[in-house]
Amino acid sequence: MNYGTCFPRWRAGAPDWDAYVRTPFLRSLADGSLPRHAFLTYLAQDYVFLIHFARAWSLAVAKAGSLPEMRACSATVHALLETETRLHLDLCARAGITEAELTATVEAPQNLAYTRYVLEAGYSGDFLDLLAALAPCVLGYGEIGARLLSEGHDPAYAEWIETYGGTDYQALCHGTAALIDGAVASRLGPQAPALPRWHQLQDRFSTATRLEAAFWTLAG
Amino acid sequence: MNYGTCFPRWRAGAPDWDAYVRTPFLRSLADGSLPRHAFLTYLAQDYVFLIHFARAWSLAVAKAGSLPEMRACSATVHALLETETRLHLDLCARAGITEAELTATVEAPQNLAYTRYVLEAGYSGDFLDLLAALAPCVLGYGEIGARLLSEGHDPAYAEWIETYGGTDYQALCHGTAALIDGAVASRLGPQAPALPRWHQLQDRFSTATRLEAAFWTLAG
Amino acid sequence: MNYGTCFPRWRAGAPDWDAYVRTPFLRSLADGSLPRHAFLTYLAQDYVFLIHFARAWSLAVAKAGSLPEMRACSATVHALLETETRLHLDLCARAGITEAELTATVEAPQNLAYTRYVLEAGYSGDFLDLLAALAPCVLGYGEIGARLLSEGHDPAYAEWIETYGGTDYQALCHGTAALIDGAVASRLGPQAPALPRWHQLQDRFSTATRLEAAFWTLAG
Amino acid sequence: MNYGTCFPRWRAGAPDWDAYVRTPFLRSLADGSLPRHAFLTYLAQDYVFLIHFARAWSLAVAKAGSLPEMRACSATVHALLETETRLHLDLCARAGITEAELTATVEAPQNLAYTRYVLEAGYSGDFLDLLAALAPCVLGYGEIGARLLSEGHDPAYAEWIETYGGTDYQALCHGTAALIDGAVASRLGPQAPALPRWHQLQDRFSTATRLEAAFWTLAG
Repeated sequence: MNYGTCFPRWRAGAPDWDAYVRTPFLRSLADGSLPRHAFLTYLAQDYVFLIHFARAWSLAVAKAGSLPEMRACSATVHALLETETRLHLDLCARAGITEAELTATVEAPQNLAYTRYVLEAGYSGDFLDLLAALAPCVLGYGEIGARLLSEGHDPAYAEWIETYGGTDYQALCHGTAALIDGAVASRLGPQAPALPRWHQLQDRFSTATRLEAAFWTLAG
Repeated sequence: MNYGTCFPRWRAGAPDWDAYVRTPFLRSLADGSLPRHAFLTYLAQDYVFLIHFARAWSLAVAKAGSLPEMRACSATVHALLETETRLHLDLCARAGITEAELTATVEAPQNLAYTRYVLEAGYSGDFLDLLAALAPCVLGYGEIGARLLSEGHDPAYAEWIETYGGTDYQALCHGTAALIDGAVASRLGPQAPALPRWHQLQDRFSTATRLEAAFWTLAG
Repeated sequence: MNYGTCFPRWRAGAPDWDAYVRTPFLRSLADGSLPRHAFLTYLAQDYVFLIHFARAWSLAVAKAGSLPEMRACSATVHALLETETRLHLDLCARAGITEAELTATVEAPQNLAYTRYVLEAGYSGDFLDLLAALAPCVLGYGEIGARLLSEGHDPAYAEWIETYGGTDYQALCHGTAALIDGAVASRLGPQAPALPRWHQLQDRFSTATRLEAAFWTLAG
Repeated sequence: MNYGTCFPRWRAGAPDWDAYVRTPFLRSLADGSLPRHAFLTYLAQDYVFLIHFARAWSLAVAKAGSLPEMRACSATVHALLETETRLHLDLCARAGITEAELTATVEAPQNLAYTRYVLEAGYSGDFLDLLAALAPCVLGYGEIGARLLSEGHDPAYAEWIETYGGTDYQALCHGTAALIDGAVASRLGPQAPALPRWHQLQDRFSTATRLEAAFWTLAG
């Protein structure tokens, strides 16, 4: 998927992109062979992930440069905290995992690595560093969902695939890409990819991609 | 007003509390003698203030210690960015100030001092430092609104007084006080006021109160 | 003084530069008419200032992009904490102000405004935002010192003038300017002044200059 | 080793402490069977680690609550940037690794996980959160060095063991423990371990210990 203009360039420059979006975990999710317990392990980690993800998007509100940027990031926080986390709770509840169990989940090292990398990139860098580190997650899930949906899949994990491949999530991806493109243009101008700063953002994106790729291995 | 249990103690320990809530600006607002241009100057600064205030509450989401704390702070951000800033725009539009004029407002030093103090307290300290620095604004406006409403006032600035003295804002104050009391208890325990940490929080509250008192002078 | 290449451009774009470097306080410091108590008030505030200034330069170490940038900022922190603060203590001691009195100094609002603005710029922005907000202080004092020294001055406050106009401080200014120029070039490239990002840095510099100008009034 | 009073309690509460200080890597380092290439891999990662470690201690200066706390942390930064990194360069140079190779080292995920966890703990929490996350590294290396030195060891990696077991590093450990104990006492008072805040600090320490334990596996 080509969400906006910065993302396709950053993706092309990230050596681990394929390792992230074409992983054995995802193949087995698509063909239905993924063991249920592995999926539940992933879901529980993803619940903890969502909380830190919401923290990172909140930090983006604090670091934004304009009211529209603040509103865009705040809408994501609101959706994560009011909708996504509750949907996750429902999904887990139906799978037999209680909220108390979810809250007690011990964060896997791969989870810690990615979420803290993103947050620290945001704290130590600026709004662009934060967006570049967040991008692989938001847009990579969109790319994965769209591809799995178009390729056909087993019904076992259809709900997951239809969520990320579906219209709502795809619209969110296009909105996030527009936020990124606008943020880069309004700071670095039309020749952004020619600046040294671009390579620093590429490095944020590539490192975050590498850590996202490792995330799939936590459900071993 | 006694919002919760921490706030009344902090208020009692802040030497500038009366200078903040019983200021000439507020007396003239209540008796209708405040010149229109002074009120508009205040409104324009307050618009810029709201933006940094929303940034500070977003930082609180990133620094919160639990999902309920995150949700409480995020609801405030959402209300500020989606409702309050739009209401302010309407109010200013009716007074003849355009959005472009508002956005171009040069922040007064008193505005810079308070908002950056709060944000820096949050960045350098933790969630409690941030809440202690935010409290004088949220709860002081509640106390001012409730008092002016109960004492009777000229219709000239009734809308302002009825907003902060009204049911919705008072409920928000009680909610914020509950957030503060819960956050202090879940970190410092029931004997919090006996700890050295309490004095550091008192200092945050007192300094923020001093800077809030100075804020009223900007429309001088 | 033309320290490096970014500073002269930023200075030319800051409306309050002259209000900062050519203020009545400085004139009376040069001609010796500044009352002693006003100078001591300034010194006590400046002591508190140095502490927050050292915090800001430490934040710069955390936000730097390379080991040489880290070392340059850390050398400043080291000098501030090990040398400058002790020199200030000596100077104050000779003037009859004890360390306990200095530590108990209540920060003036103008002091809070500038230091928290700088720190918040650093936390919310990146290394460049922090340097642009720090620059008016470091380099402005260099420009003031060099000018007062060259214009001739009364012996009353010669020590202050000779410190900032002297060889050591002037070398530090040239070093800081080189740090800034290098940091801008290694992120924004040779056409930095043509980028929107430049205007954001100019705004940091201009606002910090405005707050520095107000700082002189605290000893009023 | 019992460095101070907080550390022994936190260590006792960290389930992964033994996994961190009694690891196969360390056994082979002591008996000399550790392959040279594994040691060099570790050294190169440790060089990158030192840089982020210096950033974290700089953040501690910015977040400290008093001038003595600032000076203690700044002295560590200064030692890391001026002495430790240069010693590491020398050590690596003698082993045939150039500075350019060191600088080009790709950070291992275990390295990213620990350093970003520490930095993020510091940014999102306060000075105590940062110290609790830094403690396992500083004091764990002291404990490891002292034990290996006392137990006898092969000459192959004697320099490493003598560095961390030696007088200078042990003094640094006692100084860091005093800093931690003082910081906890001056914020949380003498009953700190009875407060909920203590458990949050324990959690910081335990998670950092878990990530430190994983660090040894990177040289696999």
